[in-house]
Amino acid sequence: MPEFRAGSTAQVSYLDELVEAGLLTRTGVHGVYARGQAFERIRLAFDALVTRAAAPEAPEPLYFPPLLPREQLETSGYLGSFPHLAGTVFAFEGDEDDAAAQLELASRHEDWSGFQQMSDMVLLPAACYPLYPAVAQRGPLPEAGLTLDTGDSYVFRREPSSDPARMQIFHMREIVRVADRDTVIEWRREWRSRAEALLRSLGLELELDVAHDPFFGRTGRLLAAQQRDQELKWELLAPVAGEKPTAIASSNYHQDHFGLTYELQTAGGEPAHTGCMAFGEERVTLALLSAHGLEVSSWPEQVLEKLELEH
Amino acid sequence: MPEFRAGSTAQVSYLDELVEAGLLTRTGVHGVYARGQAFERIRLAFDALVTRAAAPEAPEPLYFPPLLPREQLETSGYLGSFPHLAGTVFAFEGDEDDAAAQLELASRHEDWSGFQQMSDMVLLPAACYPLYPAVAQRGPLPEAGLTLDTGDSYVFRREPSSDPARMQIFHMREIVRVADRDTVIEWRREWRSRAEALLRSLGLELELDVAHDPFFGRTGRLLAAQQRDQELKWELLAPVAGEKPTAIASSNYHQDHFGLTYELQTAGGEPAHTGCMAFGEERVTLALLSAHGLEVSSWPEQVLEKLELEH
Repeated sequence: MPEFRAGSTAQVSYLDELVEAGLLTRTGVHGVYARGQAFERIRLAFDALVTRAAAPEAPEPLYFPPLLPREQLETSGYLGSFPHLAGTVFAFEGDEDDAAAQLELASRHEDWSGFQQMSDMVLLPAACYPLYPAVAQRGPLPEAGLTLDTGDSYVFRREPSSDPARMQIFHMREIVRVADRDTVIEWRREWRSRAEALLRSLGLELELDVAHDPFFGRTGRLLAAQQRDQELKWELLAPVAGEKPTAIASSNYHQDHFGLTYELQTAGGEPAHTGCMAFGEERVTLALLSAHGLEVSSWPEQVLEKLELEH
Repeated sequence: MPEFRAGSTAQVSYLDELVEAGLLTRTGVHGVYARGQAFERIRLAFDALVTRAAAPEAPEPLYFPPLLPREQLETSGYLGSFPHLAGTVFAFEGDEDDAAAQLELASRHEDWSGFQQMSDMVLLPAACYPLYPAVAQRGPLPEAGLTLDTGDSYVFRREPSSDPARMQIFHMREIVRVADRDTVIEWRREWRSRAEALLRSLGLELELDVAHDPFFGRTGRLLAAQQRDQELKWELLAPVAGEKPTAIASSNYHQDHFGLTYELQTAGGEPAHTGCMAFGEERVTLALLSAHGLEVSSWPEQVLEKLELEH
């Protein structure tokens, strides 16, 4: 069994409130919830706000499903850094006798994993991952590089928890810059203040933090320290439940990692640098519900206006 | 390897055209595509049209992610009927040495499946499946039963193909009725003409067919015959590519199967009957592009109006 991250008392009772109010519905698996209409309305209103905020850059939308070719996961380095978070897709390849034996075990809720074979697909771990090989297929970048938009993409993290902010499957919206080094660094700097202003305009108490990803194991601790030292990741945190704030948006700078991995080149023939601005849409929604209350109709007027939500 | 269903010449060249026009982008896995902005605009316009069509019934939206608790798949009977279409989620549970060994194999694109354990999640096979246990949790149904709306839910079918209409992951939008037998039968009858009128209003050439699901194996042929005889499934088919039309919408009547499976009861204490009206959103989009051309701006005025799309 994977490590279960029990939520704090405040987190667990916030989840109870959300379920009671019909904002989320439990499925029986921690971190996998159905969203009710009120929750989804806020999430989509925030998604549309990100669209408006990014509009001046005219990013190219490219919408990927929640599955990634397994080969891309193998190539990307993800299994070195986050083997514990990855999900792979298995499927049945047997005959009728196998199907009957599998069904027999499954019906008794016993182990039928022996009838499942690894497929050529895995669950998408981050919204921007499939963009890089897709763009590399097109040949060298245009002179100004590219700005892309993943839309509200589902991503998977194997992190069962009773903290409602730690879901195993959720929507990540990313705006992604693919260009030369200086352009990407400057773009990330601009988005840092843009994202902060955007989230503050929604009445969220924010903290900015230079951060690191949850790398696996001993080597992971070194990678984390390195990432932090080089300021490759920053996060915006807001209160959701309990004392510690939750990361609701983050930006990663991958340097030339994807450029080298996928032979993604600038117009000048150099390996492209890449950076992304990511919003965790369910987390933003939870932070908004926490800040302004579970009834959207009683939210502050300026927040509703900003989100183009009506009473 | 699963059976690969090669598309016909017409289907394969339609896929090429779609890719060339930027409507779809290949990922390297058959039936897993990224959608470009123009494609997504049509899909979402159709999704909104379904919302308007269903509005008089005021269905309750309940939006599930693309993962289902494994236990529900085991209980639902899906593995008896469609073992070949199911996808299961596996994940890593090892230590640092295991992670290093897994990475070593994966980096060489060799078999690393031995390091993956079956998790408590599977891929969602049909949009309506998680609704039944969720609604059963609430206790007996209200007097009039319930009408539910899955939203544009991602579903998975293990069916690799070079026919663009046969995707492995796509959006299924379902309106679902949960009530007593007569109510569900009458509701399905009404949706049959409503769905037909809706799709005809978009300028699609339609055929209605009493149909059966792609059940597995010898027993499956019996189930299919039974389903057809009892008219438990009908489909609306439209031309996409090649001579044979493609099912773009369908309705299933499950009788009291889910009512009994999840102890989902009517107000009177009888096992509830259930039926659903499903639209395959990518297939509808492909049928529209096939009927009216790849350039939305040159589509017939009345189709654009119906979809509330602007030139």
